[in-house]
Amino acid sequence: MIERVVIVGTGLIGSSIGLALRAAGFSGLISGVDLSEEELRQALAMGAIGEALEGEERVLEAVTAADVIMLAVPVLGILDWMQRLAPLLGPGQLVTDVGSTKGSIAELAGRLYNGDGQARFLPGHPMAGKESGGAALAEARLLNGATWLFTALPGAASELEVEWQDWVRRFGCRVVEMEAGRHDVVCAWVSHLPQYVSTAMAALLEDEFREAPEVAGEFLAIGGRALREMTRLGASPYSMWRDVAMTNTDAVAATLLALEQRLAHLRENLRTPELRDEFARANAFRKR
Amino acid sequence: MIERVVIVGTGLIGSSIGLALRAAGFSGLISGVDLSEEELRQALAMGAIGEALEGEERVLEAVTAADVIMLAVPVLGILDWMQRLAPLLGPGQLVTDVGSTKGSIAELAGRLYNGDGQARFLPGHPMAGKESGGAALAEARLLNGATWLFTALPGAASELEVEWQDWVRRFGCRVVEMEAGRHDVVCAWVSHLPQYVSTAMAALLEDEFREAPEVAGEFLAIGGRALREMTRLGASPYSMWRDVAMTNTDAVAATLLALEQRLAHLRENLRTPELRDEFARANAFRKR
Repeated sequence: MIERVVIVGTGLIGSSIGLALRAAGFSGLISGVDLSEEELRQALAMGAIGEALEGEERVLEAVTAADVIMLAVPVLGILDWMQRLAPLLGPGQLVTDVGSTKGSIAELAGRLYNGDGQARFLPGHPMAGKESGGAALAEARLLNGATWLFTALPGAASELEVEWQDWVRRFGCRVVEMEAGRHDVVCAWVSHLPQYVSTAMAALLEDEFREAPEVAGEFLAIGGRALREMTRLGASPYSMWRDVAMTNTDAVAATLLALEQRLAHLRENLRTPELRDEFARANAFRKR
Repeated sequence: MIERVVIVGTGLIGSSIGLALRAAGFSGLISGVDLSEEELRQALAMGAIGEALEGEERVLEAVTAADVIMLAVPVLGILDWMQRLAPLLGPGQLVTDVGSTKGSIAELAGRLYNGDGQARFLPGHPMAGKESGGAALAEARLLNGATWLFTALPGAASELEVEWQDWVRRFGCRVVEMEAGRHDVVCAWVSHLPQYVSTAMAALLEDEFREAPEVAGEFLAIGGRALREMTRLGASPYSMWRDVAMTNTDAVAATLLALEQRLAHLRENLRTPELRDEFARANAFRKR
């Protein structure tokens, strides 16, 4: 029975998980840790966590007593916490995470967790977010309707893992199991590529129109919904996406190269019937 | 005083204009023409037009008696109608349009309109739309809050032009004047580029995942909002965007090439500090 949860990183996702646990009826203790005192206070004030852990000693005490430790920081931070926690924890404890890439996390988990006398690790990734972070934007319903991908290590799931996934389903999530390597390729296409394209497009427009006074600041208004949508993720924080780029470099580079080639193909066919075929393929994708 | 309006093309935009005229208090006659009998009937049924013009003779009669003729078809269709109408019309009549590109339209207008004994032509472009067309999706509020660009020919505006722009303001639009060549460059960036990128991305994903049964049809769900937004315009009709590609080829090709180079730059810097600068520029654009 999960009774004590520690959430490491009480930003947008960590605090939304705390709120979702409460909304789903979890009555145990939820403790929070965050480098930012402000994020931690915000999470406490809104009820995403029941206590704020401040100081090395209180954090150590809480994690050693926890049933579940949820790592909700960027990927490189998750890897740091995994190494820090492994020697402190033991059987009967579960560590899980929400990192955007899973290859390096699953690899490290295989070395430091799930062995005799070790805590369990269940790599996870809820496909939910906003272009701006922070506890203030957290909400239980952010997770409702989202797909929560898990890339479990080989072997049978522990009772804690089964129970945690039950909570995730109670958040309103669709649970999907996937191999870690496949996860990183799939997410490169459906999540990382959209992010980096949006960043590139927003950065390009910034350079292009910064010096055009007749339309400066009016571009989003003129372009309307299409431009707003295509550049919305341009507001996303570097801190999170640096870690994705660092830990999924090859897969992200492959999708970017594929899109570069596709754009070149479209550009070379603006006046040929091939443009019709490209629209037909795009139309088909949107009918799925 | 505008009392008789003929809308050529009673699809999404044409019908929305009819509805917006009525919502803004226009009490004159609105007649509609469309190649599709179904679109025409739909527009009539929802009150976007007051009469449906069927048959060559009725169309001729209506356009020669009209104060304003609104061309709301794709750009190549607009060019056809401009040539067809010019010899039939005279002073005291205004032709205007909603074409997505303005260079070829302004050029033809300069040759066939605004001279002695000729009707006036006012090129226009409301920055509003949906990824799917058709009268059934039309609504007056589609135009509310949108920017309506005009690329008037040289010389003083006629009374009809001033009155038409007053109606446009009553639709809730912000009226912006712009030179036709500049319009096409600006729209290549803020409208055409987002469209073709969305088409290319949707087409690429269609090819990539058509054969992946474990995730087929689930990609939009896994990717979530970001993927849905970035590929939404993939549903847009070829018919409209072929004409944009045909009549704004150079400007569109230049924006596509610029984005290809930008994506390559980002791809080559996934693990360097340059990625931080690119995110900073994108963040700045979104704060405008």
